[in-house]
Amino acid sequence: MDKEKWAVRLARRTEGFHVARAVTQVLALTERPDVISFAGGLPDPGTFLLDRVEESTHRVLSTRGGEALNYGPTRGYLHLRHWIAEQMRDWERVELDPDEILVTSGGIEALSLVAMALLEPGSTVLVGAPSYLAALHVFRCSQAEILSVEVDSRGMKPDALQDLLEGIGRGDPPRLLYLIPSFQNPSGVTLDLERRRRIVALCADYGVPIVEDHAYANLRYQGAPLPSLKRLWPEGVIFIHTFSKIFAPGVRLGWVAAGPDLVSTLALCKIGTDQCSSTLGQRVVHDFASRGGIDEQIRRAIPVYRRKRDALLAELNRQLSGRVEWTVPEGGFYVWLRLPPGSNSEQLLREAIEAHRVAFVAGTPFFADGRGQEFARLSFSFLREEDIAEGVSRLSSVLANQG
Amino acid sequence: MDKEKWAVRLARRTEGFHVARAVTQVLALTERPDVISFAGGLPDPGTFLLDRVEESTHRVLSTRGGEALNYGPTRGYLHLRHWIAEQMRDWERVELDPDEILVTSGGIEALSLVAMALLEPGSTVLVGAPSYLAALHVFRCSQAEILSVEVDSRGMKPDALQDLLEGIGRGDPPRLLYLIPSFQNPSGVTLDLERRRRIVALCADYGVPIVEDHAYANLRYQGAPLPSLKRLWPEGVIFIHTFSKIFAPGVRLGWVAAGPDLVSTLALCKIGTDQCSSTLGQRVVHDFASRGGIDEQIRRAIPVYRRKRDALLAELNRQLSGRVEWTVPEGGFYVWLRLPPGSNSEQLLREAIEAHRVAFVAGTPFFADGRGQEFARLSFSFLREEDIAEGVSRLSSVLANQG
Repeated sequence: MDKEKWAVRLARRTEGFHVARAVTQVLALTERPDVISFAGGLPDPGTFLLDRVEESTHRVLSTRGGEALNYGPTRGYLHLRHWIAEQMRDWERVELDPDEILVTSGGIEALSLVAMALLEPGSTVLVGAPSYLAALHVFRCSQAEILSVEVDSRGMKPDALQDLLEGIGRGDPPRLLYLIPSFQNPSGVTLDLERRRRIVALCADYGVPIVEDHAYANLRYQGAPLPSLKRLWPEGVIFIHTFSKIFAPGVRLGWVAAGPDLVSTLALCKIGTDQCSSTLGQRVVHDFASRGGIDEQIRRAIPVYRRKRDALLAELNRQLSGRVEWTVPEGGFYVWLRLPPGSNSEQLLREAIEAHRVAFVAGTPFFADGRGQEFARLSFSFLREEDIAEGVSRLSSVLANQG
Repeated sequence: MDKEKWAVRLARRTEGFHVARAVTQVLALTERPDVISFAGGLPDPGTFLLDRVEESTHRVLSTRGGEALNYGPTRGYLHLRHWIAEQMRDWERVELDPDEILVTSGGIEALSLVAMALLEPGSTVLVGAPSYLAALHVFRCSQAEILSVEVDSRGMKPDALQDLLEGIGRGDPPRLLYLIPSFQNPSGVTLDLERRRRIVALCADYGVPIVEDHAYANLRYQGAPLPSLKRLWPEGVIFIHTFSKIFAPGVRLGWVAAGPDLVSTLALCKIGTDQCSSTLGQRVVHDFASRGGIDEQIRRAIPVYRRKRDALLAELNRQLSGRVEWTVPEGGFYVWLRLPPGSNSEQLLREAIEAHRVAFVAGTPFFADGRGQEFARLSFSFLREEDIAEGVSRLSSVLANQG
């Protein structure tokens, strides 16, 4: 039979996949062992409490193995949902019932379920410029119309949001605003309190639900914690969190907190994605978390990441001062570089990998509006502290050769 | 603030969620401890090789814990994809490269990725009448137009398929045909070889890719294995399998095998669902599988399920003969009852749970065309063998009280 005939017809949404395809191809190159990579946003495995994870796994499999290996409820393991409700109270001072919580297969599944429940082709969503590239991909998968709101060193700009909302008008407001208020991916910046209040007020006024991605918020290296948007506006904020940065990504677990009706709808969406998140993973995380493992891990991880951040900032200062600008993140995994005017970050990245064996993520995939050539994301979370100076030195060579 | 205002606007696809909502509500009732439930399609945890799973978990965490708990490649753990390719060769005599395999978070995620890649709102998909209810839900989530093809005791009827395809014409053929050829959920029936060949020929002729769901095929209790549709038509069949019935559902792992271009697109879809399936789960399954665990589990599980099937069929024969008809599955988890003409299976189910403490799944959610009141699905996989006689006795009381 003719293989060509069997190129199946693809849905139109796949036409928006070229960005994700390009990023995937470049990320594959960064995995060469001789490359010092500031690219991937992976946690440092040295922060994992492996012995305690293994103890929890042993306890779960030896006492509840049959249940842990079978299907579980679509909304998630009830004891884990209770633990999440307690954390939301302790961390965020947000009071939730377990029926306002859905356990998901990571933060991205939470976002994809929200997109499934709220978005049709053509629905308008608002995002930061820049914003998390996988979130942009989720919205592209939904064939949403993505509008960008400028982000500066204090986070998303309320004036820019207001202008956009006024321009759209009140008749058919955007379906959602997606935000990472603390230590944003990719810029590392944190939305300050005044802007949190203004953005919430604007969204409440225009009737735009906020999807708050809390992914990095527990990893603060300096400064005082800020209230989550969920705390400022419990009714209007759909809160997403992940266990990837407070436990480990390898279990693919996260959660969404929203009103009970929406959670009920999201659970029906989940019947059409994976039916339930890993039962084994949920029970292991619950055992680990309920014995204080997550608190201990966060306590141990913060100084590890702070040291790496400080090392990166010191080397940037020492080697790149005056040539590029960068953000100073108070937490999270990322520093955002503003390259010299006229830079082409995608071209620079190719040269960086091939000629200088150093990698980052070019700025462009973080913008829904085609900008980003003058930016680059550096992640300091995964690479070894002792490689940071040499990595920045290689970045310096890349920039020296530019133009 | 007014909570009512914050009932977010839902996407139109959620209008198709009433079936899933009703099934979810009824399934919750079946979990009462005094109910003998033929409802859920869960594997028997007695078939899990818990000690060996624990050994594998220990080995993975103690030797590769940092990697096992971190993110992994979106396409899946390479060694697991190699193992899958070997199984596809050994089990199905299908030769695949690892780049024709994507590891997914269960069979349902595989199907949802295929739907994401292939379907737009209004796309036509073909399914059996009856068919797996979660698959119907996936297609409803995609806002596909679902057309049904009659299934009888030999599986899907090629004549009915041909009539439908002729009616649709060749200009805009259906985007896919979804099939569970072996021990179908819910009917338990197996598509015979002659029909496999005819259905493949028809789909090849009309240019309709087949999505073959292989979920139960390794659990055959009698009769000779049949070639998978993937073997009969490698280019045109998108093959989906799950670890839920050959290992355990609690790790949420499965795979899809298709052409490399489609797998590449499915992997991009997966960046928008969960980025990667559980790394820990994949490494544990690979360790377990590569030491012969899955072969051993299948060998041990078959007699367990065969005994339960035989017990259920014997009790149906003893207690319900002449009052209902049923299928005789050669494998899998399900027996399909045809109730007396004029039955209302949803009403019967409510009475069964409330008055007789026995549960099944009503036939209706397995039909996309609104039929099914005269059918019920009995699952024999999860309940205890010693409860089967009493369960059928309660079913007998339900039927005796009918009308």
